[in-house]
Amino acid sequence: MTMQSKSKPAKFEREITETVNGRMGPKVNPRTAELMSSLVRHLHDFVRDVEPTEQEWFALVDFLTRTGQMCSDKRQEFVLLSDTLGISMLVDAINHRGNNLPGGSRHHFQPTESTVFGPFHRAGVSELQLGASIQGKHGGEPTVMRGRVLSDDGTSIPNAMLDVWETDEDGFYDSQKGDDLNLRGIFHSDAKGEFWFKCIKPVAYPIPDDGPVGEMLRALGRHPWRPAHIHTIVSAAGHAPVTTHLFVKGSKYLDSDAVFGVKDSLIVTFVPNRSKKDAAKYGMTTPFHTVTYDFVLKKI
Amino acid sequence: MTMQSKSKPAKFEREITETVNGRMGPKVNPRTAELMSSLVRHLHDFVRDVEPTEQEWFALVDFLTRTGQMCSDKRQEFVLLSDTLGISMLVDAINHRGNNLPGGSRHHFQPTESTVFGPFHRAGVSELQLGASIQGKHGGEPTVMRGRVLSDDGTSIPNAMLDVWETDEDGFYDSQKGDDLNLRGIFHSDAKGEFWFKCIKPVAYPIPDDGPVGEMLRALGRHPWRPAHIHTIVSAAGHAPVTTHLFVKGSKYLDSDAVFGVKDSLIVTFVPNRSKKDAAKYGMTTPFHTVTYDFVLKKI
Repeated sequence: MTMQSKSKPAKFEREITETVNGRMGPKVNPRTAELMSSLVRHLHDFVRDVEPTEQEWFALVDFLTRTGQMCSDKRQEFVLLSDTLGISMLVDAINHRGNNLPGGSRHHFQPTESTVFGPFHRAGVSELQLGASIQGKHGGEPTVMRGRVLSDDGTSIPNAMLDVWETDEDGFYDSQKGDDLNLRGIFHSDAKGEFWFKCIKPVAYPIPDDGPVGEMLRALGRHPWRPAHIHTIVSAAGHAPVTTHLFVKGSKYLDSDAVFGVKDSLIVTFVPNRSKKDAAKYGMTTPFHTVTYDFVLKKI
Repeated sequence: MTMQSKSKPAKFEREITETVNGRMGPKVNPRTAELMSSLVRHLHDFVRDVEPTEQEWFALVDFLTRTGQMCSDKRQEFVLLSDTLGISMLVDAINHRGNNLPGGSRHHFQPTESTVFGPFHRAGVSELQLGASIQGKHGGEPTVMRGRVLSDDGTSIPNAMLDVWETDEDGFYDSQKGDDLNLRGIFHSDAKGEFWFKCIKPVAYPIPDDGPVGEMLRALGRHPWRPAHIHTIVSAAGHAPVTTHLFVKGSKYLDSDAVFGVKDSLIVTFVPNRSKKDAAKYGMTTPFHTVTYDFVLKKI
């Protein structure tokens, strides 16, 4: 309520952090104690660093409140917030160091790098036969996605599961438009570790920016766009699963993804294909695109 | 999804903070840029410090989501979170250094110390005559609260405003029980800077602990109780307003306030009074309590 004073911080300001953390009971789960005392320390350091006015602090409380209230079963605004602040990618990197350290010497094949999970994955998706299409009634440029699932020792993995999801040609996930499960599917690799299915060539799209996260991006002079990508979770017995995307080479925003998810190894070429023979093989009509990628999983 | 790896952090983990902050546009409000880049830095430091698993990170996202969804016009769970983590008191201390530094030499009279605002203040409260009661139909121990409002040069302040609120004898604010404005009132000091009104002796009460904040307190082995207190905002022309409490000397929890709001200078004695003469003077019946406190405001 008063103007911020730049006088010398009092003892109270220095000691409040230990006062708060010292209040924990004796039987607290050690990991809970570690997480919470660190969170309190870093949040207090932030406050001591920027010395927010009371108005600024209430604005942050209001922002967090509205972020929570924007969440529903169809929308997770706190995940968007975590994504747009680079926190999701940092947590991902920490948890998948084996995948993300280039040139790990133990492995013949570098495991596929992980990237942000995002808020649009859904459960209850249909299991489909290899070769099936997830395009449904949607427009967009027909594409065959194919490749193998390999172990990092180079052997192929039969019966590996691929859970894939992408937006429609307008850049919307099914959950943003209605209830049906669209442009999603679960496939399993065949006996040789191979997979192939039909989808549409992904398009760039903005993350939902009609809520508090959109407000924040505008205040920071940032755009809400993600480069074109298709999501995949690949998993198999005896291996660490990987949550990742394949990005479309040449897509706009590859160098300014709103959620910082792009890694060079995940950018792939969607090859235009006008071969009638190839089209017949996959049950397509020309022209279509072909994208080929081998997913590599780390043995555990 | 995989177990946390303790391998060496990769370049990505070190560089993501500058990547995120470097994404800000050129025309961002400088204070917004300062606040947000510091927030990103401290949150990333927290993540690098504790290396949360993906499950732990999702649990935090879920906690924040539920905290937002617990908020309504009657309940502000994010304020409770800020309060119980000591953040509100830290922000308060930073913004009221003049009040909180003991023995400021410029002043004859030390300004009244501030404390946490809390989530239970309401607008639209009745203006009452000096001597009126805010007890309404409630039980509790009748009390006369009286004193003066002074400037820090020692002169009395006529027409200073006191906005007071307290719980009923069961420890509930009106907004926690229904819609009526109860146990609240606005008074103005008289020509000599004096004020007096009737209220009830405050009781200790637990902050609402049936939501995410209560969950957190239990996980940390902390109780939700606040020592007995009455809230006041005191304001006057030409002076910095003060948002504060008076705490009841001898109340339980003075040394373990769930929101860290207690300051020694705000603990006052509620004196039992059996004088029929005093009772007649204030229109009370014996026994009742008297509490006397002079609020001191800083000249601006």
